[in-house]
Amino acid sequence: MTIFVDMDEVMADTYNAHIEQYNKDFETCLTVEECHGKEVWQSVPEEHQKSIRKHAHNEGFFRMIKPIENSQRVLKELSEVHDVYIASAAMEFPLSLLDKYRWLDEHFPFIHWKKRILCGDKHILKGDVLIDDRSFNLEHFDGRSIMFTSPHNVHTKGFERVDNWNEVRELLMK
Amino acid sequence: MTIFVDMDEVMADTYNAHIEQYNKDFETCLTVEECHGKEVWQSVPEEHQKSIRKHAHNEGFFRMIKPIENSQRVLKELSEVHDVYIASAAMEFPLSLLDKYRWLDEHFPFIHWKKRILCGDKHILKGDVLIDDRSFNLEHFDGRSIMFTSPHNVHTKGFERVDNWNEVRELLMK
Repeated sequence: MTIFVDMDEVMADTYNAHIEQYNKDFETCLTVEECHGKEVWQSVPEEHQKSIRKHAHNEGFFRMIKPIENSQRVLKELSEVHDVYIASAAMEFPLSLLDKYRWLDEHFPFIHWKKRILCGDKHILKGDVLIDDRSFNLEHFDGRSIMFTSPHNVHTKGFERVDNWNEVRELLMK
Repeated sequence: MTIFVDMDEVMADTYNAHIEQYNKDFETCLTVEECHGKEVWQSVPEEHQKSIRKHAHNEGFFRMIKPIENSQRVLKELSEVHDVYIASAAMEFPLSLLDKYRWLDEHFPFIHWKKRILCGDKHILKGDVLIDDRSFNLEHFDGRSIMFTSPHNVHTKGFERVDNWNEVRELLMK
């Protein structure tokens, strides 16, 4: 089975990284609870939004993000029995390309370079399963689309959903 | 129609770039004619082969390669009527990722970031046409596989073949 796994907010806790960077830059105490149901940039005063939207353009931003809980253990297991590819729509942010590669080297060294995809849109992926936090990626996929819960997508309906990596394991390691 | 186009030796004259770099490094006069039917590294003394195989790991190598004749003009035309994606198996060479992105910015600015794919293998591409110089990419593609002639593949049989970008235009702009 060919499984595509998104990076940001599925393997990497990008959401909390945005909050941390924001709190550092503006000396504030924004919490994930305050952002619930929205993008981080939508949860701050209008005059600060631009700053959050710039994070992804900063070299180093993607390099320091923490892996999502249990993603390493479960992805290792999955990749031993399935054809697991990492598919990140990173092209909008050229300075993220090498950061994302090095991040995988550090946290997911078992993901061979042959299994890494950095793309623009994901309409071109041919496989069986896509695990992603964004509906615009999931709705164009021909196979089984699984939404990984992130604070920004909690109100999105219409997709099979997992809340964490143990649930992914339950679904795909049977 | 969704068309995938490989970069090296289809859009970018990587073959001649290897020869030029080799001649510079070893103060030799290797010509493309001497390499005919082989990889560049197979056309030099054994003790020099390693040096050529390292080119792709050098930051900057992919940045200075010349575009293949007529690739810019024909790809511009194609991308106005078809869904054209650039698909490069660049992941083996992490330092090439940003170089390849900037090279596209310079020589193919009309290729939007959404249409750029840097991957490991190309088995995961879903579309109608793949133009590539490597049989291991072409033979796994579900759609129409078109081999772009490069000195190293002149003896390869079994694929629809084009020798230049005017022939691509003939095939796909009808």
